[in-house]
Amino acid sequence: MNYTDFDKTAAYKQLAGLPTKGFNFRSVLDAARVQKCATPMAGELTFSWAAKAVDDAVLKQLQALADEQELIAKYKALLNGEIMNTGEKRKVLHQLTRGQQGQPVVENGKDLGDFYRKELARFCEFADAVQAGKLKGSTGKAFRTVVQIGIGGSDLGPRALYLALENWAAKEGKKKLNAQFISNVDPDDGSAVIASLALEECLFVLVSKSGTTQETLANELFVKDKLGKAGLDSSKHMIAVTSETSPLARNAAYLDSFYIDDYIGGRYSSTSAVGGCVLSLAFGAQVFKDFLSGAAQADKMALETDILKNAALLDALIGVWERNFCGYPYTAVLPYSQALSRFPAHLQQLDMESNGKRVNRNGQPVSYSTGPVVFGEPGTNGQHSFFQLLHQGTDIVPLQFIGFVDSQRGDDVIVDKSTSQTKLAANLAAQIVAFAKGQDDADGNKEFPGHRPSSLIYGKRLTPQALGSILAHFENKVMFQGFVWNINSFDQEGVQLGKILTKKVLAGNSGDSALEAYSKILGI
Amino acid sequence: MNYTDFDKTAAYKQLAGLPTKGFNFRSVLDAARVQKCATPMAGELTFSWAAKAVDDAVLKQLQALADEQELIAKYKALLNGEIMNTGEKRKVLHQLTRGQQGQPVVENGKDLGDFYRKELARFCEFADAVQAGKLKGSTGKAFRTVVQIGIGGSDLGPRALYLALENWAAKEGKKKLNAQFISNVDPDDGSAVIASLALEECLFVLVSKSGTTQETLANELFVKDKLGKAGLDSSKHMIAVTSETSPLARNAAYLDSFYIDDYIGGRYSSTSAVGGCVLSLAFGAQVFKDFLSGAAQADKMALETDILKNAALLDALIGVWERNFCGYPYTAVLPYSQALSRFPAHLQQLDMESNGKRVNRNGQPVSYSTGPVVFGEPGTNGQHSFFQLLHQGTDIVPLQFIGFVDSQRGDDVIVDKSTSQTKLAANLAAQIVAFAKGQDDADGNKEFPGHRPSSLIYGKRLTPQALGSILAHFENKVMFQGFVWNINSFDQEGVQLGKILTKKVLAGNSGDSALEAYSKILGI
Repeated sequence: MNYTDFDKTAAYKQLAGLPTKGFNFRSVLDAARVQKCATPMAGELTFSWAAKAVDDAVLKQLQALADEQELIAKYKALLNGEIMNTGEKRKVLHQLTRGQQGQPVVENGKDLGDFYRKELARFCEFADAVQAGKLKGSTGKAFRTVVQIGIGGSDLGPRALYLALENWAAKEGKKKLNAQFISNVDPDDGSAVIASLALEECLFVLVSKSGTTQETLANELFVKDKLGKAGLDSSKHMIAVTSETSPLARNAAYLDSFYIDDYIGGRYSSTSAVGGCVLSLAFGAQVFKDFLSGAAQADKMALETDILKNAALLDALIGVWERNFCGYPYTAVLPYSQALSRFPAHLQQLDMESNGKRVNRNGQPVSYSTGPVVFGEPGTNGQHSFFQLLHQGTDIVPLQFIGFVDSQRGDDVIVDKSTSQTKLAANLAAQIVAFAKGQDDADGNKEFPGHRPSSLIYGKRLTPQALGSILAHFENKVMFQGFVWNINSFDQEGVQLGKILTKKVLAGNSGDSALEAYSKILGI
Repeated sequence: MNYTDFDKTAAYKQLAGLPTKGFNFRSVLDAARVQKCATPMAGELTFSWAAKAVDDAVLKQLQALADEQELIAKYKALLNGEIMNTGEKRKVLHQLTRGQQGQPVVENGKDLGDFYRKELARFCEFADAVQAGKLKGSTGKAFRTVVQIGIGGSDLGPRALYLALENWAAKEGKKKLNAQFISNVDPDDGSAVIASLALEECLFVLVSKSGTTQETLANELFVKDKLGKAGLDSSKHMIAVTSETSPLARNAAYLDSFYIDDYIGGRYSSTSAVGGCVLSLAFGAQVFKDFLSGAAQADKMALETDILKNAALLDALIGVWERNFCGYPYTAVLPYSQALSRFPAHLQQLDMESNGKRVNRNGQPVSYSTGPVVFGEPGTNGQHSFFQLLHQGTDIVPLQFIGFVDSQRGDDVIVDKSTSQTKLAANLAAQIVAFAKGQDDADGNKEFPGHRPSSLIYGKRLTPQALGSILAHFENKVMFQGFVWNINSFDQEGVQLGKILTKKVLAGNSGDSALEAYSKILGI
């Protein structure tokens, strides 16, 4: 395989020569373009890129870039178990937790696909037993709440996905247990969550791949202390999700343990036991499997080499165009769906932790921009908040909209001849066009320059399959961008220095007068 | 007063001539600098700017800029009721809702300070009556939950502040009512909140200054429909916060109404009845007044002309240095306090809606950057998420940390010889130094370039006074930056175009084929 820094490719030079300001939304964006610029996604969704500032010349060079950087071949190599996490010298196998798109990945005689599938079967069986009332708390009461203890990828993804399906499940009669989450080492987080719960009805899911995450272990002991004080046997109220080599594995302190391995990165772990335990406990195993099927279908569709038929690949390439040639340093994620309220926070981690890198996959500094800053909040709330800057600020922020025809709960009211759901959709359609086309006005204050590019992922309703498709879409988009930039999207060395300095502070030997001074003013 | 575009000032030219890369954190940032670069704030807080890349030469020119642009004089003019919202030709009086820092502002014989104080007294009395059980729901049950219905400034600020004090209040025995919020026009938002509540114990606070906000009125009717179906008299379960000229004012549909006016912008309304009703109902009138006293003290301290003694002014000017001369297009807000989990979302609105402007206060385009993109999540969660990019991305993101010596709930556990609160503080201290100083390493993947500037707001504990101080600090920072940039920070014309197009879609006459096509694919 050919691994070349982005700015050394022929396509880079071609793209750098194309005009970035020549796109005229007002003349170009019409019904025919909306109809034409639509790429199918898994889960009965569509990726609409009509309002992106890309013409045929740009698309032609983006296709050439995809071919030259061998993006699909690299994806296949990843699926087949090649070491794509070069820094940590690890395979990257999160797609294998939801489907077998490549060849079997065998290591030391162990088929890793079988391993993930076996764990899936085990935690689904466990969830079934809890929901059937076969497994109960230490006082004999049924479990009614599942509480995930984890941080980063063990928190943001599973939490965002739980919220995304909570109302769908309530409507469909699939809501089995409530879920809560404890993540921050700030004791106010765990304390407030615990105070709101009936502990004897709680099942805790402790999630740490290494089994050494400082925040998570502190919160585990915080919770065990509370369980003990309530007279409850913590080993009957807690399961672990970890790697087989971690101190948490096969430990009598837990009711059961479910495993992942080093080939599942934290931010990519939602489709493994990390997301699977809490989601199958909350909604039942079948809902989690439906979610996986949407993700697997998206992974399969991401193998297509024609960029116009591969939504994740096209999204990735347009993002590269905007980042490296248009010079936009950020992307806003704007779901017009309250269910996706925390999905932007998950994408923020997924994208910024994966591609916020300044060295290539061999550790050499690159001389071009890599991952953008990602932020977002649900529309219509954002419209009444930061959209002002998006419309009339001095800089252009590319936008990623997500929207659905139907609500999840189907509980609505007609006001002024339209439902709230119709108003929501009307606002979304209006914003796309307002951002793209703007509006002239003699009063500068009322002038909208337009030319704010956006894409839209849309579908009928946010179901488990649709959610799996959306999750995998962004995972694959980020992966393809990492391949374009020739970086390693699968490690996170940037978190290490802070951990080392924290340990020094706690050990009382920071060896840096500023660090001592900051510790002092913070009461340490 | 002198209103000059920023790039036409003498200070701009001086600042543009200063080096932005010459600051060496490794040699400069030591205990002495941490001790020296600390500016007192209201509420027993401190603004620490030791880890900002500003030396004496930069500070000297920032002071010159403050003087030349007459920032304090403009602030005084604003306090005294001058028309500072030039686009809408309105006064800007949110500081007057919490204290009288300037002369009395009288309009048509009416003292507006008296008006705000009278409303404060009225809603405090109302909260007292609810808490004393004198006012009850239509079935005679006491109110146990207050539900705010509002969007944008009527939601983000009050919600962030409620969450910021909820655990403090629980610990101090001041928690009177639970609060919930309905904001999004997505019917899944209101439906899920309503389904979780005992409606006969709920008091709804309907907040819309104009009384015409589409999302809020739709949610009002959604709630009234639910109250009606539950056999409850909605006029006994709902109060309104609005302007005296709105259709909601003096309306028998509400138990009572409390007033603001056009001089309180939505994003600046947390210290008016918009935040005051829900917060005094949730925590009691005295807690809200303590919060106001912290804000008022911050407003008073913001009158200081020496930038080294005025935290809001200094913060504003350093932000301008970073935005316009260092070229950083974003700022991350990172509270090491779970209580401030939604405070970044409020600051995002406050800053981006205020200063995301491309024309000056007279409507003429400016040729320099204005407000940055603002985003953030609580640390330590962010450390395990997007901090990777902040440490090792290709771009520099200025950072705003917030931290406290003590937790709010005082409920903690010792693990490995330290409490969780100590771990939280140690992480914060470590991050500041890691970002500033970085770390050399022969392996590029493990190298940290450092030179990531940050500031820190810190204090003993997040109390109502401290929270008021922090809120006013950022409001005043944003105001000063707007004065520097010569823009109007107090209107939001950027939200209008989307509203107009939405109405056209709903009326079925959008007149734009792309808009029709988007409407169609979204099911309209």
